[in-house]
Amino acid sequence: MTTITNRQYYLAARPNGAPTPADVPYRDVPVDEPAEGEVVLRNLYISLDPAIRGWMGDDPNYIEPIALGDAVRASVIGRVVKSASEEFAPGDVAMVMGGWEQYTTVPAAMCSKLDESAGIPLSYFLGVLGPTGLTAYFGLLEVGKPKAGETVLVSAAAGAVGSIVGQIAKMQGARVVGMAGSDDKCQWLKDELGFDEVINYRSCGDYAAAISKACPDGVDVYFDNVGGDILDAALACLNKFARVAVCGWISTYNIADAPGPSAKNLWQLVANSVTIQGFVVIDYMERFPEGVGQLVEWLMAGKLQFREEVVEGLDNILPTFLKLFDGSNSGKLVISLPE
Amino acid sequence: MTTITNRQYYLAARPNGAPTPADVPYRDVPVDEPAEGEVVLRNLYISLDPAIRGWMGDDPNYIEPIALGDAVRASVIGRVVKSASEEFAPGDVAMVMGGWEQYTTVPAAMCSKLDESAGIPLSYFLGVLGPTGLTAYFGLLEVGKPKAGETVLVSAAAGAVGSIVGQIAKMQGARVVGMAGSDDKCQWLKDELGFDEVINYRSCGDYAAAISKACPDGVDVYFDNVGGDILDAALACLNKFARVAVCGWISTYNIADAPGPSAKNLWQLVANSVTIQGFVVIDYMERFPEGVGQLVEWLMAGKLQFREEVVEGLDNILPTFLKLFDGSNSGKLVISLPE
Repeated sequence: MTTITNRQYYLAARPNGAPTPADVPYRDVPVDEPAEGEVVLRNLYISLDPAIRGWMGDDPNYIEPIALGDAVRASVIGRVVKSASEEFAPGDVAMVMGGWEQYTTVPAAMCSKLDESAGIPLSYFLGVLGPTGLTAYFGLLEVGKPKAGETVLVSAAAGAVGSIVGQIAKMQGARVVGMAGSDDKCQWLKDELGFDEVINYRSCGDYAAAISKACPDGVDVYFDNVGGDILDAALACLNKFARVAVCGWISTYNIADAPGPSAKNLWQLVANSVTIQGFVVIDYMERFPEGVGQLVEWLMAGKLQFREEVVEGLDNILPTFLKLFDGSNSGKLVISLPE
Repeated sequence: MTTITNRQYYLAARPNGAPTPADVPYRDVPVDEPAEGEVVLRNLYISLDPAIRGWMGDDPNYIEPIALGDAVRASVIGRVVKSASEEFAPGDVAMVMGGWEQYTTVPAAMCSKLDESAGIPLSYFLGVLGPTGLTAYFGLLEVGKPKAGETVLVSAAAGAVGSIVGQIAKMQGARVVGMAGSDDKCQWLKDELGFDEVINYRSCGDYAAAISKACPDGVDVYFDNVGGDILDAALACLNKFARVAVCGWISTYNIADAPGPSAKNLWQLVANSVTIQGFVVIDYMERFPEGVGQLVEWLMAGKLQFREEVVEGLDNILPTFLKLFDGSNSGKLVISLPE
């Protein structure tokens, strides 16, 4: 039997600032034979998410950091090419936490089988119907808890999570204001997704003044993707009993020698009885079926639009990943490895 | 009829740092005759609380700042000496938001009548049975939400609010760790109030190390009175799904040119799905009867101990108030003006 070669990008050094090819080089290694209960996936899609940057560091986090020498961790969708499990046969398609690599060998028990026949693009299960969509769904509804008529402010609103947050908030009857980094993105949010108001944070000048103007009744829910100065500005515009849902702070991830996330304007906590709540999507794992079911229903009914940017080829993975941090991506970033 | 003179301490300038006698001088003014619906109280007790320092500034807050030229605002208990209201007769005792003054003239509708015959010291209605006790009750139970077996950390634990928080947390079956500023205070918390562990924050060295040692299973609820470095240290020790109840940040109130409350270590929000929630006791106004009822029951049953430091004489009010900020008080501070 021919040995299959697996190209993988691995963590050679913890990045200080933006990860470089020296931090994340590649190597070609033989694909492991599956041990009892394991499957080998030939990866079709690799999900690129801001959270991966956090796992590259060794700061305390909600899951273990990526160990030095290990493949960079990412959600993947792949086709089973070898199986030592009764649960999967070659040809099945599965989603699992894998790596920046062509082949992933994992216990079958950790894989979710996907149904190719449903007519949904497979990559959507990494995006709107996967961790991305579920982060928006649970973060907005369970943490932000918007009520009809309230104002919801979303940062990184044209991003994969933010664009879904805004659309779900609209369905709850909220007034939705999005912040994004270009006029094109702002136009898309307003014209296509139905956001009530938009702010181009690269050209708006003073953030707090721009937010105040776009939210004349104040902010009741702030869905925070970015942290930093935009968080501080949003804090200054909150209403009594406002909720801040924090799903990650992309503005702080790629800063060399960053002191870690911090916030000023915390007088709002006492002045306006504000709640700031962090969450990660796996907090809601038991309710994923409910969330996916609702997202599929909205998607099929045309109530939820989703934009993804699929880039072909594993060798593009690091430069593509970096687009998340300069805002040059449009929608959910996925690497494809066509069969 | 003789004109009665009212000595009052008023806000002449907004303090930068600790308030000085030049910021808060006194004057003797005639007592106003009560207008229709008003009463004149001869004050018996004036409550001294950290929040008053916040109202002396003009930063955004949950109630209006004290206007320059107005008497310093404080909860008072007084005996009605003149009444132009059917609700109150001379001789009645009432509690109301009054001022640092001998006489307070207010609408009767804003006063709560107190029952002297119940055998409860009147000053307790400013403390354990008033805003102080209710802040502890609602802040701990509604914001902190401790469960049996969880670890509750309380800063300013020997203070008026903190000491009640710790005792209620014990009644919920939590393990309670208190931070206080002297060995005497720590001893009192452990021997008299039943705290499980105590930390003298003036002598413990590194705060986070001391908290970790005192809380080997981590912190599930942190009741924060102080902010600043102790907040940052507590944040670093939180467990998954921990709650931080923020009722005020005394460490920041008297700092000249303070940049305002801020926090580092906010990575905990995402790493451990932490909730940080600010509150003020008036958020729960509709439930005050429930809270007071429960506090009276615990007090009468000997389950709740309460320490107050009653200082006689209006002219001691400013130096007594400042004890709140250097930690030299023991328990709830009240000024008494004996009849």
